[in-house]
Amino acid sequence: MAFDAVNMADWQISEAAEKNMPTPEEWRDKLGLEKDEILPMGRLAKLDFLKIMNRLKNKPDGKYIEVTAITPTPLGEGKSTTSCGLMEGLGKRGMNVGGALRQPSGGPTMNVKGTAAGGGNSLLIPMTEFSLGLTGDINDIMNAHNLGMVAMTARMQHERNYNDEQLARLTGMRRLDIDPTRVEFGWIIDFCAQALRNIVIGLGGRTDGYTMQSKFGIAVGSELMAILSIATDLADLKERINNITVAFDKSGKPVTCRDLEVGNAMAAFMRNTINPTLMCTAEYNPCLVHAGPFANIAVGQSSIIADRVALKLFDYNITESGFAADIGFEKFWNVKCRYSGLKPHVSVLTATIRALKMHGGGPKVVPGKPLDDAYTKENVGLVEKGCENMVHLINVIRKAGINPVVCINRFYSDTDEECRVVRRIAEAAGARCAESKHWELGGDGALEFADTVIDACNEENDFKFLYPLEMKLRDRVEMITKEVYGGDGVDWSPEANAKAEMLEKDPQYADYATMMVKSHLSLSHDPTLKGVPKGWRLPVRDILIYSGAKFLCPCAGSISLMPGTSSNPAFRRIDVDTESGKVSGLF
Amino acid sequence: MAFDAVNMADWQISEAAEKNMPTPEEWRDKLGLEKDEILPMGRLAKLDFLKIMNRLKNKPDGKYIEVTAITPTPLGEGKSTTSCGLMEGLGKRGMNVGGALRQPSGGPTMNVKGTAAGGGNSLLIPMTEFSLGLTGDINDIMNAHNLGMVAMTARMQHERNYNDEQLARLTGMRRLDIDPTRVEFGWIIDFCAQALRNIVIGLGGRTDGYTMQSKFGIAVGSELMAILSIATDLADLKERINNITVAFDKSGKPVTCRDLEVGNAMAAFMRNTINPTLMCTAEYNPCLVHAGPFANIAVGQSSIIADRVALKLFDYNITESGFAADIGFEKFWNVKCRYSGLKPHVSVLTATIRALKMHGGGPKVVPGKPLDDAYTKENVGLVEKGCENMVHLINVIRKAGINPVVCINRFYSDTDEECRVVRRIAEAAGARCAESKHWELGGDGALEFADTVIDACNEENDFKFLYPLEMKLRDRVEMITKEVYGGDGVDWSPEANAKAEMLEKDPQYADYATMMVKSHLSLSHDPTLKGVPKGWRLPVRDILIYSGAKFLCPCAGSISLMPGTSSNPAFRRIDVDTESGKVSGLF
Repeated sequence: MAFDAVNMADWQISEAAEKNMPTPEEWRDKLGLEKDEILPMGRLAKLDFLKIMNRLKNKPDGKYIEVTAITPTPLGEGKSTTSCGLMEGLGKRGMNVGGALRQPSGGPTMNVKGTAAGGGNSLLIPMTEFSLGLTGDINDIMNAHNLGMVAMTARMQHERNYNDEQLARLTGMRRLDIDPTRVEFGWIIDFCAQALRNIVIGLGGRTDGYTMQSKFGIAVGSELMAILSIATDLADLKERINNITVAFDKSGKPVTCRDLEVGNAMAAFMRNTINPTLMCTAEYNPCLVHAGPFANIAVGQSSIIADRVALKLFDYNITESGFAADIGFEKFWNVKCRYSGLKPHVSVLTATIRALKMHGGGPKVVPGKPLDDAYTKENVGLVEKGCENMVHLINVIRKAGINPVVCINRFYSDTDEECRVVRRIAEAAGARCAESKHWELGGDGALEFADTVIDACNEENDFKFLYPLEMKLRDRVEMITKEVYGGDGVDWSPEANAKAEMLEKDPQYADYATMMVKSHLSLSHDPTLKGVPKGWRLPVRDILIYSGAKFLCPCAGSISLMPGTSSNPAFRRIDVDTESGKVSGLF
Repeated sequence: MAFDAVNMADWQISEAAEKNMPTPEEWRDKLGLEKDEILPMGRLAKLDFLKIMNRLKNKPDGKYIEVTAITPTPLGEGKSTTSCGLMEGLGKRGMNVGGALRQPSGGPTMNVKGTAAGGGNSLLIPMTEFSLGLTGDINDIMNAHNLGMVAMTARMQHERNYNDEQLARLTGMRRLDIDPTRVEFGWIIDFCAQALRNIVIGLGGRTDGYTMQSKFGIAVGSELMAILSIATDLADLKERINNITVAFDKSGKPVTCRDLEVGNAMAAFMRNTINPTLMCTAEYNPCLVHAGPFANIAVGQSSIIADRVALKLFDYNITESGFAADIGFEKFWNVKCRYSGLKPHVSVLTATIRALKMHGGGPKVVPGKPLDDAYTKENVGLVEKGCENMVHLINVIRKAGINPVVCINRFYSDTDEECRVVRRIAEAAGARCAESKHWELGGDGALEFADTVIDACNEENDFKFLYPLEMKLRDRVEMITKEVYGGDGVDWSPEANAKAEMLEKDPQYADYATMMVKSHLSLSHDPTLKGVPKGWRLPVRDILIYSGAKFLCPCAGSISLMPGTSSNPAFRRIDVDTESGKVSGLF
């Protein structure tokens, strides 16, 4: 029944699978939804989360399963594929299963990474809609966000051009007196547009804006996207949007979207954005797609709203956290679950033989270059040594009181002996372990994996946070560094330390989430250090403050909020058939 | 039955009318559509134009009615309201009537003009969707357009950083060698963002783009929007997109989206954008909404595709052209109808007593300031004198062989005597004339208007173009100036003249449309000259070339492709109810 994943591109598998894809009306019946709980949007549909939650508020939640990964190679180890594969495997076992995954950004889709909708027989369909804007959520965010910038830049211009009396008479506005050197907010676009990273705007004359430096970030890095992923409802979303700090005034006081009188209109653009979109896997397991925040400055995960709805609709809800378990799982654990109040049962630690070999000392893996022989031929020694990274992360998951399941996302070239070693070590570390061939075989390749997850779900667990909310910022970072990353401690730069001191003293920051910024390519801050680095300290250079999302982001690495388009981008190969409207070349 | 337009804001009337608004399924039955011809998009729906046209290809077209206006005051004289009112009046008379109107831009909606969805009892509903992005068409255009800019700027960076050998090896690309001082294409955003009018991009370092001047325009001014309004199908759209000139290379040769290998991916973003969206008036007359191109550099009208579908579905299809009759109607007549092959039956010339008084010598009308008494108290003399502008434009419509109907869009303060004068002069000039109170009363206020239009539709007419396609560019402009604007001739600047000579010689421009750029606030190029200015010549300073849309735009006035946000913009008053998701404050 599975498609020939070896010889078919992902978009071809999607197109083939779409032939039997349920329509929105069929989904309504399958999921037992009321008519006004599902809003068809072409081949997709949005679910009205308030209506569904209201109707099902007394229904017990399903099992909550998170999918993460060991520290990956730069190629990624297939978390999305594994998430879809698990849905398909559980589906083949007759379970009422579904998922809640992220929406991809147009940037990677048009650049080198591709859509990341899973792959092979374990992908989300229809891939065209998924790749090209879904039901418009990112566009809503883009319009809402940029409206904030329009409001700010126009205000700066008018305040420069008018005196206080004119300003009051013409607009009824007071002077905000924004400091042009302390503007925090930038514009957004959902592509990798490195040319817009550093710009000067407002050239021309008196009516052409306010001349200053400015910047564009990628849309999914917007604070609005961060907010969407953690908001509990529209009221919460609107309040957080109004609280976004766009700049500081000349006396150092924050200027917010509320001050600009634009936060409510921004929220109006997002009135439907808060409702998740319904898609499915290539084997027609339902999957909500909602939010797609950057994994560095935000949770990097689908929304709390989507998880809540999915836990009511499905007996098993599969969700994914961004990056590797040290970063993505830690945020799932201590930030997302704290905000949501939901308790996960199982975390799946996705592992590949390829990544384990890298941690064991294999040659550098470089995207776009062929893999070294070490990765395609049996080498049990490298695998065994590399398992220390896996064991470290199994222990992290166990600290949360969640049952860990290692999934070996098996490639062709992996040998049975290599996989046996991984299983032995994983089980010795207290995890369950399963191999899975969902990419090649879909749900039929993920039956053992599904059974293992069911088994783990039935085991009692005792979910607990790493740190209490009362813990101070620097203590939290120290604890995360030691307990999760395996470092010896934290080195604060004088600037970061002063900022931390201020933040710890000011009660308004007491309930802000701690959102670590660190490379996902190593347990440490240094992406070249593989395995489990020892004898290092985490250097924190700065702390970013997001007053809308209520995030404090200690930065142990540089972050770019605007990736670059490569010299050989995907858009060269994307095309549309002018008779059928079908899109080809997505991957 | 009508709503209390005097005491209700437009968004309140929309909200009240939405209670009984047909669902997409109900529309399917009402319009006799097949299941796969209508794609529900929330409360709206998209119509699959290819499928509908294929099924109905042998069905005769309905009557084709265009709505234009006399030279307006800066406040506008209510073309959209009149279009909706006519649909409602014909609906009350039991006719199978519908329309094809433009989508508004987010810029004016969030600034001072508002959504311009009609008004009072003659407006399009649901107003929230109409105002905040409809079904995403403008977002599609924004993403497609900006992807083109991403491709160009990334290419310029990589070509600077790599030598020819590296470029070929890494990317298989040849060097395009774009001249950074001759980049034509800019970025777009759908707001009035004057701060982005003139910018410098690509600051930073080697991987931060290519440093150069750049610009943002408003999305509805994009060449892609111009193309959407005149494309006949997806194949035509894709071809035109690939032909867009983004820049010139250092030898002066055009560089297109095809050269950047991005035109096909841009078209993929617009695969659904070519399908019109179905909305309705406050009295539930169906109306397609599609495209919303700027009226200066483009046709300023809903799409050819929408008109084609509407003429198959409805016995009477009402469409609107942008600006006043000298600009908007002339483009409808000689550009849009030539591309479409459709023959209009009637043109409605919307007139207000206010605008006629202005043409008769009334004081200056300034937006935001109270109207002078001359406009709110009876003054038959001013009206009578101002009718010369109306008579001039009746004659223009008659030159096209279309039957003119003057619609007096009646305000409270207009007196019967003032209206009688207009009717007498209009009829003497060979037009039918009707008063209409659709704003206040909906269709019940537009019955005489509807009857007059039905009557005019039943009269034989003989549609003909002003100039043959073979006519050379400068002769066309001369003819339009004399026959439509009433000028004595054209003065070409030396630069424009040289460009015109080049364009007339080059056979590739032979089938390009002539798209005049001129103020709509006067028949002349000088917006302060009201009535019918005499003894003037049209100064043409430049000719813009759009190789995707295939437009040559002779410029007799300055155009800004990025309006500015005012000091008292609409977004201040827009809000969303966090329980119901309902948006308030739109107008």
